[in-house]
Amino acid sequence: MLSKSQISLLTSLQHKKFRQQSGLFLVEGYKSIIEFVNSPYRIQTIYHTPGIASKLLNLSRKINFQEISTAELQKISTLKNPADAIAAVYIPQWAGFSDADLKNKHSLVLDGVQDPGNMGTIIRTADWFGITNIICSEDTVDAYNPKVVQATMGSLARMNISYTDLKEFLRSADLPVYGALLNGESIYDVDFGKEALIVMGNEGNGIRPDIQQLIQHPVTIPRVGGAESLNVAIATAIFCAKLAAKSFQ
Amino acid sequence: MLSKSQISLLTSLQHKKFRQQSGLFLVEGYKSIIEFVNSPYRIQTIYHTPGIASKLLNLSRKINFQEISTAELQKISTLKNPADAIAAVYIPQWAGFSDADLKNKHSLVLDGVQDPGNMGTIIRTADWFGITNIICSEDTVDAYNPKVVQATMGSLARMNISYTDLKEFLRSADLPVYGALLNGESIYDVDFGKEALIVMGNEGNGIRPDIQQLIQHPVTIPRVGGAESLNVAIATAIFCAKLAAKSFQ
Repeated sequence: MLSKSQISLLTSLQHKKFRQQSGLFLVEGYKSIIEFVNSPYRIQTIYHTPGIASKLLNLSRKINFQEISTAELQKISTLKNPADAIAAVYIPQWAGFSDADLKNKHSLVLDGVQDPGNMGTIIRTADWFGITNIICSEDTVDAYNPKVVQATMGSLARMNISYTDLKEFLRSADLPVYGALLNGESIYDVDFGKEALIVMGNEGNGIRPDIQQLIQHPVTIPRVGGAESLNVAIATAIFCAKLAAKSFQ
Repeated sequence: MLSKSQISLLTSLQHKKFRQQSGLFLVEGYKSIIEFVNSPYRIQTIYHTPGIASKLLNLSRKINFQEISTAELQKISTLKNPADAIAAVYIPQWAGFSDADLKNKHSLVLDGVQDPGNMGTIIRTADWFGITNIICSEDTVDAYNPKVVQATMGSLARMNISYTDLKEFLRSADLPVYGALLNGESIYDVDFGKEALIVMGNEGNGIRPDIQQLIQHPVTIPRVGGAESLNVAIATAIFCAKLAAKSFQ
């Protein structure tokens, strides 16, 4: 049975302030939780309903777990229809990307992405295409927001994410900087090379002017029809597909 | 001022049953409404707040409009934060696609897409890439669902959408049929030609087995990393980007 203080801690993790205070975030559903168990993430506790107890006995490493009732799960879940388990997982503590982390690969840079669904979809899509580094502006939505975690469908467990001052980061990065902008080179013609940073912007406003100035290679997805813009997760996916095309040539 | 029966009709349009009975659907926000005004869609009435009255006097064609208060807009809106106007628009009545409608172009076929956000994003993305035909299975989410309309950001006004028995449609269609499946040809190598049907499947289950049998050219987006799957709107966008370019490599 969950104590009052456990319920209070777990429900507080829906808010960024309390995630930062406790260093914990929530992962819901056995299928997603397992991705974190099979990753370097440290699991604090898995709270699970009786139905999946036997599955947890066979985990590849020793994890704290606690059986709770469906009614208790409902209390601490962020979902309308909670699945079977919820885990409190430690937010990784690290100093951000070193030059070596970024060498010989493509990394995404997000300037002010706001929507949790978009952020989650970007992480899931990047994971599909083998991109594992995402550098975010400080005002980008928190990747440990429960809605983001949910939308990544476990892919967050394989992603390195850092929040930083993008202007400073891009200025000191020793890599070519590409960005999704209007009036750039067509994405069909771009060669991203073997290492690059790819900057994507905010849903409504795109990339901030002072960040735009640091983009050496503006890239455009050519428009054929009438839509005014593309959703940022959609645009990111098309960039990722193009980046991954290299691996198949 | 809105009458009780107006409020009752307008709020009923959030449900498919009442949209079908009345032949009307809702479009919210001046920016989206204008896309329908500048399209062959017939507008029944635009309900607008006082702030945008002057804009409506300059419309390119004669449209019924009615001024309402912000409180009234709140009552009939499907949004938490309603914008400035809501329009009741006639659902187009047509018999579906003829062979001529499908010739010399690429059309999307959706088999059981369920999520309104995905459906709206697919329509918006198709519009960006100049694809204007979408053929849906009868259980695909209704394109006139307010959440879908919202997510298309006006692109629905430029799209031809029909709901039909996909098995029958694909059997009688005189066009090559491509589909997003596992273990198909890599999308980087596919040549879709100048005319084709592209089938995308349901979020959880993909394309139904009996529809799969009608796909002549299975196509796969190769996976590099760890994600188990791609979101259907993301996968559709990557297909659209490839369709829009002769060489997406």
